[in-house]
Amino acid sequence: MEKNFKLTIEYDGTEFHGWQRQKQDRTIQGEIEGALLVMTGKKVNLIGSGRTDAGVHALEQVASFSCRTRLDPNAFLNGLNSLLPDAIVIQNCKIVSTDFHARFDVRRKTYHYRILNRRLPTAIKRQYSWYVRRPLDRAAMRRAAAELVGTHDFKTFEGTGSPRPDSIRQVFTATFFEEGKDYLVFEIEADGFLRFMVRSIVGTLVAVGLGKIDPEDFRTILNSQDRSQAGVTAPPQGLFLVRVTY
Amino acid sequence: MEKNFKLTIEYDGTEFHGWQRQKQDRTIQGEIEGALLVMTGKKVNLIGSGRTDAGVHALEQVASFSCRTRLDPNAFLNGLNSLLPDAIVIQNCKIVSTDFHARFDVRRKTYHYRILNRRLPTAIKRQYSWYVRRPLDRAAMRRAAAELVGTHDFKTFEGTGSPRPDSIRQVFTATFFEEGKDYLVFEIEADGFLRFMVRSIVGTLVAVGLGKIDPEDFRTILNSQDRSQAGVTAPPQGLFLVRVTY
Repeated sequence: MEKNFKLTIEYDGTEFHGWQRQKQDRTIQGEIEGALLVMTGKKVNLIGSGRTDAGVHALEQVASFSCRTRLDPNAFLNGLNSLLPDAIVIQNCKIVSTDFHARFDVRRKTYHYRILNRRLPTAIKRQYSWYVRRPLDRAAMRRAAAELVGTHDFKTFEGTGSPRPDSIRQVFTATFFEEGKDYLVFEIEADGFLRFMVRSIVGTLVAVGLGKIDPEDFRTILNSQDRSQAGVTAPPQGLFLVRVTY
Repeated sequence: MEKNFKLTIEYDGTEFHGWQRQKQDRTIQGEIEGALLVMTGKKVNLIGSGRTDAGVHALEQVASFSCRTRLDPNAFLNGLNSLLPDAIVIQNCKIVSTDFHARFDVRRKTYHYRILNRRLPTAIKRQYSWYVRRPLDRAAMRRAAAELVGTHDFKTFEGTGSPRPDSIRQVFTATFFEEGKDYLVFEIEADGFLRFMVRSIVGTLVAVGLGKIDPEDFRTILNSQDRSQAGVTAPPQGLFLVRVTY
């Protein structure tokens, strides 16, 4: 009987070329599909909640696969973890109804983006944060971030070369919290994200924090639907997919 | 005029063969001495507060070097950081009196050892913690750890093949604290440490936590001066040198 499995996956994106299977390069999807082939003897199509780019991490990425197998979720949990590289850990595996689809059924996703803001960089967390040396005006960044909440066309923050027919998304939360005195974490929850959207938003919010963009102009930039109005795309290593809600 | 500089150094030990300079392999001391050669044109002897082993990290390792130079501490701070690999960051550089010696003048050192204790491992922090799957009796570990405080001969916890003439050390603090519900961090402060001492102690405390050693027997093991009584040597990646006091 065909069973549908839902995986919750933590990964360190540092050494991978992102989520999506590629011919040459190591990817998260590729590694897990490879391990599923070993376990089941079949080519299994793993459906992720969405892609993450090279260098981006996940605490709880979600993916699903259908398979005729006698193996139960616990066998997959232990078997996959013993086959996968240490940088990918399956944190949960369960059977879900056959009509569950990890991509189409997503209701909300939450990302964190971690910024280190102090004079000197970090050695230990260099692969998990973006080092910004000049002092950031955190109050200005919070004011600008608040403009993101609601339903907007996010074309301004979409990566070039990857336009989607529909760039309207609803943002539920867009806030900053602090970790210690040096780390600033941006949390954003939405019903979906465009390619590079979080990193483009963070790059623009950092431009606000550096005084290059007036926080009062942030709404105008958001509404301009013009990528050239946005700031730089923040580097991938600060970004974590932290939760997918169905 | 000869000046004496004191460096405070953060490093991610993952990719290095420890602190001490080696002919072939990349080490922290070797990398910094290489950068000092570029900056000063001289072979500079960098004196660390002590060695750390391959894979061990430091938040605040201390080292000193003497040099005839016109460069000031800020020039060394910025110059070294631009030359060094990202996994080594000089966090502070200052001039100290010419009789300051980074090794001989150490009064206290503090280490942290981070244990992940839950059913499943971690991807993101795998290089910064020891994953112990079976549940640990934290109260028993705390009782045993308390026995370490005071002046003892720590021969039981000294790595084989590296005996020192004097294995008596004074421990000021030996406690556990929690990070979230899954991480247990051992903090130990002493006037000095033998080779592999922290990792041997942690391996033995984990044996206590797993019920393999009775916490009441820990003092006997400590006093036995017999390495075969101790537990395994905990792996290097959980260990952090966090502070050196002069």
